[in-house]
Amino acid sequence: MAVQQFSASAHLQDGVQVKVQARNFTLTIDEPKELGGTDLGMNPVEALLGSLGACQAIVARVYAQKFNVELNDFRVEVEGDIDLDGFFGLSDVRPGYSEIRYRFVIDSPSSRENIDGLIAHLQAHCPVGDSLAAPVKLVLSDVVVNSQAA
Amino acid sequence: MAVQQFSASAHLQDGVQVKVQARNFTLTIDEPKELGGTDLGMNPVEALLGSLGACQAIVARVYAQKFNVELNDFRVEVEGDIDLDGFFGLSDVRPGYSEIRYRFVIDSPSSRENIDGLIAHLQAHCPVGDSLAAPVKLVLSDVVVNSQAA
Repeated sequence: MAVQQFSASAHLQDGVQVKVQARNFTLTIDEPKELGGTDLGMNPVEALLGSLGACQAIVARVYAQKFNVELNDFRVEVEGDIDLDGFFGLSDVRPGYSEIRYRFVIDSPSSRENIDGLIAHLQAHCPVGDSLAAPVKLVLSDVVVNSQAA
Repeated sequence: MAVQQFSASAHLQDGVQVKVQARNFTLTIDEPKELGGTDLGMNPVEALLGSLGACQAIVARVYAQKFNVELNDFRVEVEGDIDLDGFFGLSDVRPGYSEIRYRFVIDSPSSRENIDGLIAHLQAHCPVGDSLAAPVKLVLSDVVVNSQAA
């Protein structure tokens, strides 16, 4: 059994600011002013794109040698489309990303054939990419309500 | 047209460390030592869970008033299962999350009925949640290879 659990928590602060924690690491999430926030951090859908790019970069690093690719530099630029009418309930479009595009900028002396092999492997084995491209079962496991005075 | 683009970039550093950037915000991603990293930040699949929890918390804040819910405190604990055999190519299991569970810990004087209404709305309208629960079209838009000397 190689099934491993990963975890994180998110704690709402003032307004739409959120403190995210995973193990001993923290990340401040917020929204830009035009989306109702105070612009103190990237927002959740940007953090999602960043986690995709980071995952792809790590898979590239881990598998480069296997595909005989020397990586002098590896950068991913990710962008995605969200129809905000879904979030705001103005139409029945999905609230999430309809499409996410990514662009690899690679500095490598290796052959294009080897690089393309690495990219194909990367696309098929990236945990975050797979979690977005194929449906994940989301389960509300518990709701705990306390009602102490504010 | 309410379709909005969001973007982020990921730049591979030494080992499996990655510098993520979205607008003027940065995040260091790394892997723990047991997964081959130097443990300088949360890893991509933890950042993914964090972005889900943050997104849920923000949706809760934005819609609380509409459901007559007063939120004194709102916290999300998220965990998910990944079979690492998929990433390491040891079996045909998917490399991403098979299941993600979340637990809401709420401090509120409001009725349970109103809180449940907010939670149901939140689950249906969370952009990150929807991006995980339903398939997103992922597109490799470009590969740029440079081959300067290292």
